[in-house]
Amino acid sequence: MITVQEAGKRAKAAARSIMLRSAEEKNQALLLIADALLENADEIIEANKKDIAVAHEKGMKESLVDRLMLNKARVEALSNSVKEIVLLSDPIGEVMEQWERPNGLKLKKVRVPMGVIGIIYEARPNVTVDAAVLCLKSGSGALLRGGSDAINSNMALVKIMRKALQGTLIDPDAIMLCEDTSRESATAMMKMNEYLDVLIPRGGAGLIRSVVENATVPVIETGTGNCHIYVDQEASVEMAKDIIVNAKTQRTGVCNACESLLVHENIAPCCLPVIYNALLEKGCRVLGCEKTRKYIAAEEATEADFATEFLDLIISVKVVSDVDEAINHVEKYSTHHSDAIITENNETAEKFLREVNSAAVYHNASTRFTDGGEFGFGAEMGISTQKLHARGPMGLKEITSYKYIIEGTGQIR
Amino acid sequence: MITVQEAGKRAKAAARSIMLRSAEEKNQALLLIADALLENADEIIEANKKDIAVAHEKGMKESLVDRLMLNKARVEALSNSVKEIVLLSDPIGEVMEQWERPNGLKLKKVRVPMGVIGIIYEARPNVTVDAAVLCLKSGSGALLRGGSDAINSNMALVKIMRKALQGTLIDPDAIMLCEDTSRESATAMMKMNEYLDVLIPRGGAGLIRSVVENATVPVIETGTGNCHIYVDQEASVEMAKDIIVNAKTQRTGVCNACESLLVHENIAPCCLPVIYNALLEKGCRVLGCEKTRKYIAAEEATEADFATEFLDLIISVKVVSDVDEAINHVEKYSTHHSDAIITENNETAEKFLREVNSAAVYHNASTRFTDGGEFGFGAEMGISTQKLHARGPMGLKEITSYKYIIEGTGQIR
Repeated sequence: MITVQEAGKRAKAAARSIMLRSAEEKNQALLLIADALLENADEIIEANKKDIAVAHEKGMKESLVDRLMLNKARVEALSNSVKEIVLLSDPIGEVMEQWERPNGLKLKKVRVPMGVIGIIYEARPNVTVDAAVLCLKSGSGALLRGGSDAINSNMALVKIMRKALQGTLIDPDAIMLCEDTSRESATAMMKMNEYLDVLIPRGGAGLIRSVVENATVPVIETGTGNCHIYVDQEASVEMAKDIIVNAKTQRTGVCNACESLLVHENIAPCCLPVIYNALLEKGCRVLGCEKTRKYIAAEEATEADFATEFLDLIISVKVVSDVDEAINHVEKYSTHHSDAIITENNETAEKFLREVNSAAVYHNASTRFTDGGEFGFGAEMGISTQKLHARGPMGLKEITSYKYIIEGTGQIR
Repeated sequence: MITVQEAGKRAKAAARSIMLRSAEEKNQALLLIADALLENADEIIEANKKDIAVAHEKGMKESLVDRLMLNKARVEALSNSVKEIVLLSDPIGEVMEQWERPNGLKLKKVRVPMGVIGIIYEARPNVTVDAAVLCLKSGSGALLRGGSDAINSNMALVKIMRKALQGTLIDPDAIMLCEDTSRESATAMMKMNEYLDVLIPRGGAGLIRSVVENATVPVIETGTGNCHIYVDQEASVEMAKDIIVNAKTQRTGVCNACESLLVHENIAPCCLPVIYNALLEKGCRVLGCEKTRKYIAAEEATEADFATEFLDLIISVKVVSDVDEAINHVEKYSTHHSDAIITENNETAEKFLREVNSAAVYHNASTRFTDGGEFGFGAEMGISTQKLHARGPMGLKEITSYKYIIEGTGQIR
């Protein structure tokens, strides 16, 4: 088993050559990877069975075992997702801006690969393929460090992807897996500034906090979403109900699910019972402030509830006296991932969209759309909740950098 | 004296309102600051004299005392630089991209302020004004933490700028100074994720390393430049000489100065003596590899010399056998700040510009142009040497973020 440092060093060496590959050369390699995954589906599934067996022994929750599990259909889906990434346009080499200075210097700002991208993630083995392939398409090397629960699956997937790169113009070391799943390997990786240009954690709040607190490598913080929907006094009750039920219940374990509902006091009497009943039908627990509980039989919401990302069929509800109180509440409790207003009044909407300082702000739509696929990026490396570099869903462009190319004729200062 | 936490908290509260101010409102405030600096020049100079006296007592080098010193002319220059920033176009509110999805959702990617920008810097008091004003113009709050050597000057400058904001629509807390110059206040500031959106260190390599190693707040690494110039076999010797003399000697203590010279072996016999004599005339020490010393009487260069940013009248020289060896050397030793090739062969130039992975790559021009002013940005917050977020000179745009505004008509997933 090679060390994480050695893996990083090899990924960095390989990055120098991927950087120079054309779109066609990279796509060719991706298609070989897509084929290899399909051809070696049995090997992948065999390896995955070992992980599943260990998971059962450990008494892992069935919902988590399901996220870990790979079968023929899921391997096919993985292979297809690689083919979809082939179809995306190549971001590298784009001239983002160009201009000339009075002294005749010609400047070009050109999109270039990030270099080596480190990804620290948890159980889902599909991240192994998605992340590797997105890095490769964007011209970067990938250093992958998945969790111990999926180690056998990850080793099989990476072995197959690397083998597919043999004989292409891309060095197989463009995809490196850290096979050491100890806490120490993760901590070491967070400090590998010499080999990594950025570190992206994908997983639960604990993992992300650990990376933010310990990394010296630049980090893109992803994930946690305490998302709000504010129902204005001029909202369509029907639309509000549909959007809230969708945003809360369509999938609950995701970062763009709605966790907290704010309702204008003038519309609360007619609106809250409708929404409450619709949520109850979906099996959702409702925790409300004092005013809320005048209109519906919600449980009592504590201050802590408003700060909680439930990731479950639970929602907190607060009645507010106007849009300003709603905005202030959002600014206090939101993780600034995705927040929405439901209103027919465009002026009120504009105020909310302007003053709520979140990565994605919605007017009359579900927060569940904050997603690379739904935004039309074609793929997603995660959803950034920081303001540096990338904000919201990260597609191919968001995992690139740029450089300046300056052409002169002997200019000096 | 308020704590750094309290200062951060107040800057964050103020940031919510600056974010919403129009270009006119911000420019109005900047003009008041420019006037106030001029009107209170005596107070600034008095405070600065205290710092100068302490510096002399401590036996500070005269060159550093000079960087610390403010006189009438320098205060006027500071005031004028604020007026120049007024003239720059406001980056905030720019619609960077917009598109519609098949489901009718309308997406807009809009440039927004960063929030609160923390700046940790060393002795030069002009950074206090430059940084505060750039933050304000870009809609962000500034938390400034200068060094102890300039504390009296900084306190006077910040007091005057804050006073100028009174009665404007911008909360004076938009500009906060950390008056505690202890090591502890700097360390605390590096971990204030709750209040700071980004931290920019400006100063020597030690300061920058300390911030990168200790900060949990996202950092933009600035500064160190081990910059190279490669003289190709098809270079104009005259142009090479002029560019190298300029890049090495015009100013030596700056990050875009040339520190290392690479020369193609075919041109070395005729080119090196010319460059050597020109550098000697400027009082420059020349350290050369074995091959170099066949042609000129350079001192012996060690491996460590090639990795050193001298920031002084010293240059290292290596003779290489081709452009590939030059590129490999640059990739090994460069800090990826600014690197140049001198050649009349466009194909060779293109290869160098493509394969050298630095923030700024030059063909036939001095590395000294890597600068916000020289690039035409009108101002500069520093020069980033990392690939995340911003690379090379950072003007107003480079210290902003963005958000997505999504308009729907009731869309759900």
